[in-house]
Formats: sequence, structure tokens, C-alpha cells
Amino acid sequence: MTTPSRLALVPFVSVDDMMRLVHRIGIERFLTDLVAEIEADFRRWPQFDKTPRVASHSEIGVIELMPTSDGQTYGFKYVNGHPGNMKKGLQTVTAFGLLADVATGYPVLLSEMTILTALRTAATSAMAGKWLAPKGARVMAMIGNGAQAEFQALAFKAVCGITEVRLYDIDPAATAKCVANLAGSGLTVTPCRTAEEAIMGAQVVTTCTADKQYATILTDNMIGEGVHINAVGGDCPGKTELAPGILTRSAVFVEYPPQTRVEGEIQQMPEDFPVTELWQVIAGQTGGRTDARQITLFDSVGFAVEDFSALRYVHGKLSETGLCQMLDMIADPDDPRDLFGMLMRAAPARAA
Amino acid sequence: MTTPSRLALVPFVSVDDMMRLVHRIGIERFLTDLVAEIEADFRRWPQFDKTPRVASHSEIGVIELMPTSDGQTYGFKYVNGHPGNMKKGLQTVTAFGLLADVATGYPVLLSEMTILTALRTAATSAMAGKWLAPKGARVMAMIGNGAQAEFQALAFKAVCGITEVRLYDIDPAATAKCVANLAGSGLTVTPCRTAEEAIMGAQVVTTCTADKQYATILTDNMIGEGVHINAVGGDCPGKTELAPGILTRSAVFVEYPPQTRVEGEIQQMPEDFPVTELWQVIAGQTGGRTDARQITLFDSVGFAVEDFSALRYVHGKLSETGLCQMLDMIADPDDPRDLFGMLMRAAPARAA
Repeated sequence: MTTPSRLALVPFVSVDDMMRLVHRIGIERFLTDLVAEIEADFRRWPQFDKTPRVASHSEIGVIELMPTSDGQTYGFKYVNGHPGNMKKGLQTVTAFGLLADVATGYPVLLSEMTILTALRTAATSAMAGKWLAPKGARVMAMIGNGAQAEFQALAFKAVCGITEVRLYDIDPAATAKCVANLAGSGLTVTPCRTAEEAIMGAQVVTTCTADKQYATILTDNMIGEGVHINAVGGDCPGKTELAPGILTRSAVFVEYPPQTRVEGEIQQMPEDFPVTELWQVIAGQTGGRTDARQITLFDSVGFAVEDFSALRYVHGKLSETGLCQMLDMIADPDDPRDLFGMLMRAAPARAA
Repeated sequence: MTTPSRLALVPFVSVDDMMRLVHRIGIERFLTDLVAEIEADFRRWPQFDKTPRVASHSEIGVIELMPTSDGQTYGFKYVNGHPGNMKKGLQTVTAFGLLADVATGYPVLLSEMTILTALRTAATSAMAGKWLAPKGARVMAMIGNGAQAEFQALAFKAVCGITEVRLYDIDPAATAKCVANLAGSGLTVTPCRTAEEAIMGAQVVTTCTADKQYATILTDNMIGEGVHINAVGGDCPGKTELAPGILTRSAVFVEYPPQTRVEGEIQQMPEDFPVTELWQVIAGQTGGRTDARQITLFDSVGFAVEDFSALRYVHGKLSETGLCQMLDMIADPDDPRDLFGMLMRAAPARAA
């Protein structure tokens, strides 16, 4: 029997471990911590090795790899997007991720990221809201009440001071689920019968629907001045949520333009459509919202740096919480050139 | 406590499981099976979604993601290459990989691939040798006796009928390790003091050294007519093993030109340097070796399809062998839109 050495073992955070971690820390604290981690990484954005995610599209969905590195640590996420999964009783989005040491290439963390992606997506939205939403925003409309909705609501509560969410989904059952889940959250939760009704009185409008097709969740006349739009659902080629007229009236903020121009709401616009990179706002290189009447729009598609921040946060909690198991994932012979010898010496134990 | 559903659990093949699997099947049989799997996939090459691997380079190494898909199954490998690792007592190359169902995006296999990569690299080399080496080849020179060497030797024995290997490495300890490991393999093993000596009488010359720099392991005058060169070590930008003169005298076969032109021996040559894609030989679309005096060269860099074939082979053995553990990797709530509810309902158990 070969006993794996320390380096051969990679800490793995299972779905169960992740749920325990969230409850140990508290979900609103977890979201607030994530915002701080992501902000810290957005401030040092130029240090990251950035590339648009590598997508493998099929007719019914996409599987993506999202790598990045800060020169010390490398991270990537595997994530799928299959809008039709829901009808099969499956998650639209599932994910896992990994951190590795750039100096050696050895993995240092493997983690579930279905839950973590939901948290980091909401944290990123709330971070953008913190920098872009009008002052004193208290009411958020949420169009699309699926798997991401409650995370968005709690993140905007914890980070932006939202006190009321107004919910609309084409499927009333999704809204009912969301209402039930947010009971006791401290938020005033108002289910609405139309998107127009949900938007009434809202300073922040979050769109998060899942159809993989050009859709118009928000029409031009639904958006009045001063609103911050948090457009989460338009996140792959052929999938948008907003009427083009809204984009031309808005100051548009994005994560990583080479990716967003292909995947985001702005895929509807010319290639030179002006956008501001969110990291530049956070790093103080440019302003965010210029006045109370401006429409700001965060055209969110999700970028690898956000996953990196989230994975690093989880990694930093492991020694304190012990919420992981060790996986025998890396072959690590005593003599590194003797991989074959390690394999052969394992034989007698196998036969025994 | 939440009990993960069937789909939430992903079979994981650990290093120990992989070693057991290799011994259960037998290493030469495993290599021969892999050749059959890789050949089958090379024959249907146009069906694969192909992309050069996504590399994150640092000064001391590289971390790569290698995805592909045949439309039914998606696969990717994480692999690093750190030549300096050896001196730290670490593997130069470590890897793991994943298969997923294209229809849902759900992972179906996570596997160690440090050992599996060593096996598939050797299998791919032997597959190329089977199609390109001169008839009746019995002697192989091996320049570079590191972690890949014994796998190459056994693969050429099992697949190409090689009976003698002649070993050379700048470090005699590497050669001694290789000699010891191949004792009892049935191969005649001859350690040599120089590369020139190793090449004497060899019909196949395998180069597999690890320095990340332009090196000249083989000079032009070392290679006579009729030889098949299996160039394994030149596999990333700035890393080559052969003198350019050898390339101009050879018929050069590659896996995937857009990747090989950046990473392989032919990175030394003009962009239009003629190459033949190996899959076309195997699919019968073009000939391989044209005559006994031709020098054939397999400029191997490793391609995602080979990893896909290897992972599928391992996946196919799981139900028969049970050599895996189930990982709680995918969050899978009863109502797919209710990820938040799943997380929240887990809370009481966490507190208990």
C-alpha cells in the first residue's frame, strides 16, 4: 500500500462542507466578505492574467472553463449553463473550481462552486450596486425569481441597504418560492403580477432570467431616469434581456470587455459601443454614477477573477473550520522521476 | 442533514484507484487498450470540438486546461509543466481530468491524470510509431530517462514490437532508475554513455527531456535515413529538442497543427512548414511512411482528444471494477430553482 504524501492530498470542499461553511459564517456576512475579497482583487485588476472564458457550446447549453492567475495563485472554474435542465429537475448552473500554486502547478483546493457561484454572482452584483446605484436606494425590483434570486436579494440588503424587493417571474411558482425563502430575512417582499408592477418605485432593477435566447425582459419605456439596472441573465451569445434602447440611454459598466462584448447585453450593440470597466471605478481611476438622473447599467456576465476571489476566501477558511476532506489526487512518488516505480511498487499490495 | 441525490455524486478515481486499475488490467494491456481508444477517436477526428489548450505561463512553468467534446461527452484536463519541480522533489507534470454529459453539463467522472497522462502519452507515441515506424523496427533509443521513459518503453514493446531499448540521460541516475524499473519487462535494456551511442542501431528514436528551453538533444548528423523520431519533450513555447535540419529532412506528423505550431518542434520553422495530421493517416485519408529510407517524425505535444479517450476508457471500467469513490460535488436541490432553499434547510442540521 502506498501512503500518499502531504502534497499528494488536495483539500476538497463538498457541497455539504460549503453549506456548513455558509452557516458557520452566516450568509449575509459571507456575502459581505465576498464583496470585500472581490473589491480587493478588482483594485489590482492589471495584475491578473485575463482571458475570455473557454466555452463549448451545444444547442441546449454551454460548458465553460474560466481560468485566471495573479502570478502567485492560479484558479479556474468549470461551469455549465443549461436552461432546459430545470424541466429535467436539474440545476441550470452547476460548477466546481480549483486553486493551484503557480510556483509548482500543484492544486491546493478543489471546491464545489454551484453554491459558491450563486454567492459570488450576488456579491459581484451588490458590489457594482454599491458603486453605481443611486444614493439612498431602498427598493429593488427582481425580474426572474429562479435559483439566483434570493442570493441577489440578501446581497443587496447586506451591502447596499436595500430594504424591499419586488418580485416578478413568468412562473408564479418561482415567485412564491422566493417569497417563502425570504420570509424572516428582514426584507419587505412584494410579489407582483407584471414586470411593470415590480419596477414601480424601484431604484434598482435586477434582471435574472435563464432562457437561452434573445428576450426583452425590460422594454425601453419601463426604465425611468436615475435607476440602476443589474442585468445578470444576459450572459452568453444569443442570450440578452434588455431592449437596445435602454443600453443607449445608460452608462454601461462591465467586467471584462472582450468577454462581455460576446456574451453580455452589449452583444446587441456595435463593437465600439462605449463601456466602462468596473474595476476602474473601484480602483478610483474613473467615476461611477455621475448624477442622480443617470441610468447606470451593470452588464454582468461573470468573470474568472470573481471566482478566484471566492475560492481564495474559501481556502482561507479551511484551517480555521476544517470543513474539507483530503483527496488523493496528485501522484507524488518519493523520487519525482520515478512515477513508474511508484506505480510498479504498488502492485504487490494490489494483488494481496 | 441533506443526503445528496444520485446526480449530485461524481465518481472520483484517486491515484490509488488508478494504480489498482492499472494492475487489475495489466499495464501492457492498459496501454494497448488506450491505443485502440485513441485510434477510434482519431478516426472520427472531425466530430470533435477542438481548440488549442489554454495555457497560463509563468517564468518557471505552465498550467494548462485542455478541453474537447464530441457532442455527447465533454472532457478536459488540468495539467501543469514545471521542469524545476524535480529539484524540489515534486513531479514535473501533474494532472487531473473530468468528463461531463453535454446534454446536462453535469460531470460524470473526476479522475487523477498524472499516471493516466503518462500512460496516454506513451500510448499516443506508440500509436504514431505503429503507423510511421519502419517495418520490423526492434530497437528504440530513448534520450531522456525521466518519469515518462518506462511508459514509452512498454508502450512501444506492446504496440510496435520493440524488443530493445537503448537509454541515455545527462543524469546517469535517471538511466539507472530506468534500467532497474525495466528489469523483468522482457525488454533488452542497454544503458549508454552518450546520445550518439544510444542511437546506434536504433530504428526508433524517442526524445523526452524536460528543460523548458531551446535545446538540441538531437543534432542533424545523428539521424540517418529510415529512422522514426518520436519527439515527446518539445511541448511548449520556447522548448524544443531537435536541430532544425532534422525537421527539414523529415516527414513531420502532428496532432493538431494550431497547437503544435506554437508548442512543438515545428515552432522553429516557418508558419507554412508542411505537416501531416496524424488522424488523417489513421483514418486512411493520407499515407504515413512512404518508403524505408524516409525519416518520419512525430512532433508530439499532447492533445485534448487523447485525454478524452483515456478518461472515457477509465470511465468505462468503473462499473466493472468499482475503483472509485463518490464525491458530493454537485448541489442538487429537489426543486432546481430552489438552491437557496436547499442551503437554508441545511441550517438546522448544521447547528445541531
